[in-house]
Amino acid sequence: MDCVFCAIVRGESPASLVHADDDVLAFLDIRPVTPGHLLVIPRRHAVGLSDLPTELGPAIWGTAQRLAGALRGSGVRCDGVNLFLADGEPAGQEVFHVHLHVVPRFAGDGFRLDAQWRFPARSELDMTAEQIRQALPD
Amino acid sequence: MDCVFCAIVRGESPASLVHADDDVLAFLDIRPVTPGHLLVIPRRHAVGLSDLPTELGPAIWGTAQRLAGALRGSGVRCDGVNLFLADGEPAGQEVFHVHLHVVPRFAGDGFRLDAQWRFPARSELDMTAEQIRQALPD
Ligand SMILES: [Zn+2]
Ligand SMILES: [Zn+2]
Repeated sequence: MDCVFCAIVRGESPASLVHADDDVLAFLDIRPVTPGHLLVIPRRHAVGLSDLPTELGPAIWGTAQRLAGALRGSGVRCDGVNLFLADGEPAGQEVFHVHLHVVPRFAGDGFRLDAQWRFPARSELDMTAEQIRQALPD
Repeated sequence: MDCVFCAIVRGESPASLVHADDDVLAFLDIRPVTPGHLLVIPRRHAVGLSDLPTELGPAIWGTAQRLAGALRGSGVRCDGVNLFLADGEPAGQEVFHVHLHVVPRFAGDGFRLDAQWRFPARSELDMTAEQIRQALPD
């Protein structure tokens, strides 16, 4: 298998590590949005949210939460933090080993989101909610 | 306190709910990026990652993971999913009760990220990693 993040896990590719434990690694993104932009990955290969074992979620989230605090106290410029995950190519995923971005933010950092925001009627929101509820497993 | 999400938790403001349990609620964003755009919040008020009790993280993440699966199976248009969290005003936070966005994505949905991506030298990445590691509590 030719996964760049698995190669980092095996120690065969370089990475600027910030954290490592039995379940997850965290290292600097090589193409950062801002200095200090981190990725948290599970050691075990999973492509996305659907094949990530649910027991690994807390390790990923908990590490991201701790890293957000560390970034704010590190001297890296960080007046806010974004967590971001892209699950699937239409969501912008580029490396197909699940990873959570932890991005330090500050005013004027050049990062922005664009979207076609709408304000649907409550009746439309309620219908969509019902549709999603029906797809939730019990 | 005048928190719009706490008002939803108390049942005093309307919301198109998709999930509710002892720890978290999930409901449709009233200003969605795409139809089916959800927010997962803890019932207990916390502003952001720094005051969110760490024991609530797994409930938030786990709910988001389940909702991502539900969205993909719901008939809502969803070929990918983004998870997004804004911690602090410089990160784009607008409601100061911590919330995780779960956004269904598809090609041509109008959502995009812009940033000033760079490729720093490995030596710069290593120095930044060291700076962040030193700020991590043991
Ligand atoms: Zn991998
Ligand atoms: Zn609140």
